[in-house]
Amino acid sequence: MSKVFIHDQLIRFAHCDPAAIVYFPRFFDLAHSTMEDWFADGVGIPLAELIRERRIGTPTVKINCDFVKPLRMGDTLRFELRVSKLGNASVNMDYRGTKDGIEHLQIKQTLVFMNLDSAKATPIPNDVRKRIEKFLIAPDKAS
Amino acid sequence: MSKVFIHDQLIRFAHCDPAAIVYFPRFFDLAHSTMEDWFADGVGIPLAELIRERRIGTPTVKINCDFVKPLRMGDTLRFELRVSKLGNASVNMDYRGTKDGIEHLQIKQTLVFMNLDSAKATPIPNDVRKRIEKFLIAPDKAS
Amino acid sequence: MSKVFIHDQLIRFAHCDPAAIVYFPRFFDLAHSTMEDWFADGVGIPLAELIRERRIGTPTVKINCDFVKPLRMGDTLRFELRVSKLGNASVNMDYRGTKDGIEHLQIKQTLVFMNLDSAKATPIPNDVRKRIEKFLIAPDKAS
Amino acid sequence: MSKVFIHDQLIRFAHCDPAAIVYFPRFFDLAHSTMEDWFADGVGIPLAELIRERRIGTPTVKINCDFVKPLRMGDTLRFELRVSKLGNASVNMDYRGTKDGIEHLQIKQTLVFMNLDSAKATPIPNDVRKRIEKFLIAPDKAS
Repeated sequence: MSKVFIHDQLIRFAHCDPAAIVYFPRFFDLAHSTMEDWFADGVGIPLAELIRERRIGTPTVKINCDFVKPLRMGDTLRFELRVSKLGNASVNMDYRGTKDGIEHLQIKQTLVFMNLDSAKATPIPNDVRKRIEKFLIAPDKAS
Repeated sequence: MSKVFIHDQLIRFAHCDPAAIVYFPRFFDLAHSTMEDWFADGVGIPLAELIRERRIGTPTVKINCDFVKPLRMGDTLRFELRVSKLGNASVNMDYRGTKDGIEHLQIKQTLVFMNLDSAKATPIPNDVRKRIEKFLIAPDKAS
Repeated sequence: MSKVFIHDQLIRFAHCDPAAIVYFPRFFDLAHSTMEDWFADGVGIPLAELIRERRIGTPTVKINCDFVKPLRMGDTLRFELRVSKLGNASVNMDYRGTKDGIEHLQIKQTLVFMNLDSAKATPIPNDVRKRIEKFLIAPDKAS
Repeated sequence: MSKVFIHDQLIRFAHCDPAAIVYFPRFFDLAHSTMEDWFADGVGIPLAELIRERRIGTPTVKINCDFVKPLRMGDTLRFELRVSKLGNASVNMDYRGTKDGIEHLQIKQTLVFMNLDSAKATPIPNDVRKRIEKFLIAPDKAS
């Protein structure tokens, strides 16, 4: 049974625009924070450690987002994070964003593991892969 | 023959991350600036005027992005903006991001015209529609 | 004896620049988050409530900052927040930013309570004032 | 007679908060852009070149700001940039922010030239110093 990483964040003043709703590029900052905390607390290997000690970065090569309902200052955004595909050097991440149990947005992101010195894709190290696999959803459940 | 809105922006220090490349959420700020200048200089109706005088906002309901090559501080990002579909209350925008003529990213965005008082979708006003139509690509050329 | 509001925040990837240290304008976002949590959890009146229900905003009219030591991704920034002066419509806030007990930055900020409809300064409501007073440092200890 | 660097920037949607005025931390992004363009077009040595080729960064060690009047989306912010002091390794910069000739904010910033490899202050290179000197205001005119 695959694990889901649950991550709550407060919508702040700085996230909101003159229409008093979240300015959409800020949702990608919020998703990035979720990914950072997933690496640290879910996978168990902080991104800062991956970058500094292993010289591996995880640039985003593709991202799709559907904004279903707006969010406002003071709301709590919950992201449920799952891994929908695990490639040799890439990870497909699914973020389901809810408030009070109701879906407000969906993000699908593809990360690539990259050697920061050569700037080329690099296979996901085995110890990291094993930890990421726990969040991989069963193929028949992937959307 | 449809028009293309060409928009150049300098990649700045603040756009870049510890890997010295653009942190991807900043590309959506850059695309938003392009959209704002398109409204003001291409369509001929500034977004600020739309918001203040007509109480119409243009929230993004869907956005897809492929990041092909990284960009760095000092690079000039050129966006070529086209309209790929014009609905009753929605506009599909295609941004082709290049540097020195080489494609670096692609963004496809769906905007909805929204009445800011009712927070509901509203038909695109006719005068605005006519001006947007000039940027609509021929259906057989849409990707 | 005056209270101090203690607030910890993780330094994230998005806060850092190509030199891999916090890009200084991000410290003001971090201070703003501290202020928001102080209003909600210290003062006991969320800023969102102040804005929506009382139509009072708290724009910053003056801010001074000394950056003593840099901070990096993965560091925990602790702000100790104190009120150094409480005027009729203004509040002077002192943020002492530390990491591992060592001072890294200092921010002094002046907020003004503003009626959002008239866009004019408005006296701090009495119930709010009484709660803010608890964080006011003794005059002889103010720097 | 000292030179003044004049720099205009459009206030955009992304700079503004739910009160529809510029969220104050964004003014520091706007000042940073002015500084970058000053290095490139005023001093004649782009910051990106300083960073990459000379391994010199210019972190901010002190910044003070007075916000006199708010700015809104669609406004043009003009910064007049002057150098008020030129030290061995530091530069004091004065930004006077106006709209339609009326002062809206003032920023005073101290930069330090830093060797990016040693992370220590380094004397301003002579060729750079000579170019910066042109923007140094006469001592009796410094505020």
